[in-house]
Amino acid sequence: MLVHSRQVEIEFGDCDPAGIVYYPNYFRMFDASTAHLFEAALRMKKIAWTRHYQIVGIPMVDTGAKFVKPSRFGDVVTIESRVTEFRRSSFSVAHQLYNAGDLAIEAHEVRVWAAADPANPGGIKSAAIPETVIAAFSA
Amino acid sequence: MLVHSRQVEIEFGDCDPAGIVYYPNYFRMFDASTAHLFEAALRMKKIAWTRHYQIVGIPMVDTGAKFVKPSRFGDVVTIESRVTEFRRSSFSVAHQLYNAGDLAIEAHEVRVWAAADPANPGGIKSAAIPETVIAAFSA
Amino acid sequence: MLVHSRQVEIEFGDCDPAGIVYYPNYFRMFDASTAHLFEAALRMKKIAWTRHYQIVGIPMVDTGAKFVKPSRFGDVVTIESRVTEFRRSSFSVAHQLYNAGDLAIEAHEVRVWAAADPANPGGIKSAAIPETVIAAFSA
Amino acid sequence: MLVHSRQVEIEFGDCDPAGIVYYPNYFRMFDASTAHLFEAALRMKKIAWTRHYQIVGIPMVDTGAKFVKPSRFGDVVTIESRVTEFRRSSFSVAHQLYNAGDLAIEAHEVRVWAAADPANPGGIKSAAIPETVIAAFSA
Repeated sequence: MLVHSRQVEIEFGDCDPAGIVYYPNYFRMFDASTAHLFEAALRMKKIAWTRHYQIVGIPMVDTGAKFVKPSRFGDVVTIESRVTEFRRSSFSVAHQLYNAGDLAIEAHEVRVWAAADPANPGGIKSAAIPETVIAAFSA
Repeated sequence: MLVHSRQVEIEFGDCDPAGIVYYPNYFRMFDASTAHLFEAALRMKKIAWTRHYQIVGIPMVDTGAKFVKPSRFGDVVTIESRVTEFRRSSFSVAHQLYNAGDLAIEAHEVRVWAAADPANPGGIKSAAIPETVIAAFSA
Repeated sequence: MLVHSRQVEIEFGDCDPAGIVYYPNYFRMFDASTAHLFEAALRMKKIAWTRHYQIVGIPMVDTGAKFVKPSRFGDVVTIESRVTEFRRSSFSVAHQLYNAGDLAIEAHEVRVWAAADPANPGGIKSAAIPETVIAAFSA
Repeated sequence: MLVHSRQVEIEFGDCDPAGIVYYPNYFRMFDASTAHLFEAALRMKKIAWTRHYQIVGIPMVDTGAKFVKPSRFGDVVTIESRVTEFRRSSFSVAHQLYNAGDLAIEAHEVRVWAAADPANPGGIKSAAIPETVIAAFSA
């Protein structure tokens, strides 16, 4: 399965009065990492692949993280992301965040492949994940 | 002119490694204060008055703030907000943030009364501010 | 066990291009709810009880959330929070977020009661949770 | 004077229900750009140059921005930053944000070179900006 890796520099504004990253901000980073993972697999920006596959997005249904080591302003961390399972209309993602070679955070996500619901204006419903999407991750 | 006042408790997550509010977060507070000011004048939630007046929103075109005194985690600050001028399709807002009775921040905004642009799908254009809106602020 | 309930109004700036709360922002709300829960139990602001008990804070070691229903700009949601278990130097918190009477999110946290580490300047170490703290939650 | 340029990719989480960057998030970007500008001039990370010059930071006293064009999720914008004036203990910064070659935002900052105040524990006071710092920007 495709593994996407990117580096993120921790900014002053990511950190809290304890001088470490305020943990809700990690979820922003992981959300962006999932978007970048799909961009790498599908070779389109998220805004393009959501249009291409006629979905509204990949909303989160369950996420969590274990914080092993804190990171500080100025640290450059590496986030490795991969899909761990594709199901009919949902999938799981795992992120590992490394700081100076040490595993600092492990996070997981369950997301839904979501289309507009024609029966419910403004609503969404899960849709089958196309085979071509799944294939793009094992290429 | 109507003055809207609200209290905001500074949360841990609003603050930076210096232990004071990270200043971009004040702009979130002022944005919410402008929404609450219009809600107080129009007696509808923002989501209702944007629909009622068939606009897409009141996007910011110019904002700034002078930071006189810092605020810290646990402080309960008061934000006073008022429209200082209505023009044809734009208006100005002033915010004063007080902490323990002292003026801590002065901020200003220029926003546009913006409708969907029928000539440009997805685009917006300024629209005349209805007299009833302006009147609601002097009531 | 003490249950703390508070209402939070969803602001425009909490929401994403899908028009619903951007989920990392829920973790900010839950973090503040845990601070308010301890304030209610200990009858002191967080900044006061961290000083009183000579700790540096209650850093997060594990958190997660299940998102059942989205919330939108203008919704006023209720967050109910309680400690589900106190251990020697760590404890668990559960949050339920309700929107219009429906359970919208379930979240959990594991946090550590953390003091400065005299052997490691700038570092922290877990400390035993005082009996008086635990007692304050069952009063 | 040194001009520092960096590219920033607009993430989904930077954007609001109107589908454009939520403007308070630009102030986070500009704050980071000022840190990067000083890093480029002083050839040290912010955390290192604040220690080296024995200051607590460069707190904001006045900032503002004019929003000419919106930016959207997936856009890669360029931020150009420079110091426009050094005074005894304060200085001004200008940022221009370009999107697809067009000027999208102009922002300015006034910041103070701030040291710990020995007469007031936990307080800060302005300090003279060292000549070597100023020289590093004209090199």
